Amino acid sequence: LRSIVWQDGCLQLLNQTALPGKAEYIACRDWRRVAEAIRRLEVRGAPAIGAVAAYGLVLGARELAAQPGDFRPALLAVAGELRKTRPTAVNLFWALDRMLAVAGRYGDDTPPTAVAAALEEEAGAIYREDEAVNRQISVNGAALFAPGSAVLTHCNAGALATVAFGTALGVIGEAWRQGLISRVFVDEPRPLLQGARLTTWELRQEGIPVTLITDNMAGWVMRRGMVQAVIVGGDRITARGDVANKIGTYSLAVLAREHGIPMYVAAPLSTFDFSLESGDDIPIEERSADEVTGFGGVRTAPEGIEVFNPAFDVTPGELVTAIITEHGVLRSPYREAIAGLLEKTKGGR
Amino acid sequence: LRSIVWQDGCLQLLNQTALPGKAEYIACRDWRRVAEAIRRLEVRGAPAIGAVAAYGLVLGARELAAQPGDFRPALLAVAGELRKTRPTAVNLFWALDRMLAVAGRYGDDTPPTAVAAALEEEAGAIYREDEAVNRQISVNGAALFAPGSAVLTHCNAGALATVAFGTALGVIGEAWRQGLISRVFVDEPRPLLQGARLTTWELRQEGIPVTLITDNMAGWVMRRGMVQAVIVGGDRITARGDVANKIGTYSLAVLAREHGIPMYVAAPLSTFDFSLESGDDIPIEERSADEVTGFGGVRTAPEGIEVFNPAFDVTPGELVTAIITEHGVLRSPYREAIAGLLEKTKGGR
Repeated sequence: LRSIVWQDGCLQLLNQTALPGKAEYIACRDWRRVAEAIRRLEVRGAPAIGAVAAYGLVLGARELAAQPGDFRPALLAVAGELRKTRPTAVNLFWALDRMLAVAGRYGDDTPPTAVAAALEEEAGAIYREDEAVNRQISVNGAALFAPGSAVLTHCNAGALATVAFGTALGVIGEAWRQGLISRVFVDEPRPLLQGARLTTWELRQEGIPVTLITDNMAGWVMRRGMVQAVIVGGDRITARGDVANKIGTYSLAVLAREHGIPMYVAAPLSTFDFSLESGDDIPIEERSADEVTGFGGVRTAPEGIEVFNPAFDVTPGELVTAIITEHGVLRSPYREAIAGLLEKTKGGR
Repeated sequence: LRSIVWQDGCLQLLNQTALPGKAEYIACRDWRRVAEAIRRLEVRGAPAIGAVAAYGLVLGARELAAQPGDFRPALLAVAGELRKTRPTAVNLFWALDRMLAVAGRYGDDTPPTAVAAALEEEAGAIYREDEAVNRQISVNGAALFAPGSAVLTHCNAGALATVAFGTALGVIGEAWRQGLISRVFVDEPRPLLQGARLTTWELRQEGIPVTLITDNMAGWVMRRGMVQAVIVGGDRITARGDVANKIGTYSLAVLAREHGIPMYVAAPLSTFDFSLESGDDIPIEERSADEVTGFGGVRTAPEGIEVFNPAFDVTPGELVTAIITEHGVLRSPYREAIAGLLEKTKGGR
């Protein structure tokens, strides 16, 4: 399963809003269409958004290089527009910063086409690295599970949310192949049902036993002893280990602790935002009321009803048992664990 | 708003599966149609089911009285069929037991039409009492709120779930009129969206400010300090105060305690099952997978996916701050509180 394919100057995106009904690709030849795809959640998931934004900038650079005008400020403007698409997942900003750093290495005398080529190189590197990162996270995380574990996952942190195997679902897949995980409980989650639509679909393709539940069943499933761990992805992680992730993650973390069940977050280092200390400082995207007042095009609430629709919440690091990264498994206190990790990786990611 | 109307031998039920799109009544002249309405959730809510089952038995008695055959065993058989409609809410069994006790007061020499008339009387008494009980619960519960409270309610424990004003929504309405409650957060809840469809509709008819959220947002709403209390109804309460209620109630109770927010249950004495000590012994209805794999005819999960769909969960009494009854507000330890209440009401309900 490849949800993101770059070929001959065209970025093909598997349209996640049409799954599981239809598996159709959107062909993006214009960076504006890439921005639109991120905004509309046709592509979603923190690592995927990062890689896609990088290729969006490549498309922008190619367009600008082919026309007269001042290349650099125009490129920065394109990056600025891509930045505005979604506020919470930090991988978007991380990828664009990395791309702009590459552009910055070339002097003004470098032909724009050469800069565009260098950017294409770098986007390819981000893409390939994410695959390697996914693989390493999967291996690191699988080691945490005892044989025969049933786990609960929330939203979709799978192949569709990344370039390759996924973060949380990468771990689940690896642990399943090692005979450690026996079943995965998948919640919906409302409003956009990425679990019901996407995660069930991905897990079934791998032949992993799945049980779908509604979000409000998670506590009861834990109380009845039906799951032994919770594992999710992350959209932004602060220096002290506070984790922004799909709305509902925080409730699951509280419930997991109540039941003595570990709460794992699987995320690459590109999901960390070292500039933020507290999760209170993470901007939380609020989305349209329509997502909550209806369901698959069916109106379910009275017209004009007021809605609160945060797309993410923040789970404080104290509630996170471990954060599984490509460089190893971090445990609280996260500030120290993260510092140690950065030391080990010499500050690079 | 009257969701249940008995007139000239016909039970009119406001079809709750069609709300809020359409407000249509189902005319039941046959007890079998009443049983069907309970099974299909066209009428739902523990107290409402009790009153409706009582009238179902009246329809059965009238039918049996108008035809030859052995009246009493046939009446018991009708009661037995009505009992099978739903397993969790105890008000159903309570109402049928009360009706059969009335029938038992008459000897075999009493004409069946006279027994049927006595049953109609008793169903009317249950109906009228529920209205009085709703009113008293509302007053007792409103006293618990400080001015300016925002509260979260789950599912629908309103006029549609009872004969008159509702239990949890009765309390909310009374507290609103007294200027104590400023806003009500309503969760959906999945799978059947009784909050999004019914509770929002009821509260708006009263002009109470409403904010609709998805189930998985409740923890985040609490963490952000947006609500000061949770209040729900109940489907069966054991002698030690364990509460079976709509799936998701247990998660809310855990989350409420985590945030130091009171968790209130509003329920009449008819919702108590003194024969059960522990909530573990309450039968929990599991419903069809279709409810979870889609909504309103829209399929949202892949075909053939496995589903766990309990309609209720059980919240242990330790997590319930208070149970609001028509005879007063009970607090933990519930065994002693309930014993005191029964003493006060002389064992009657």
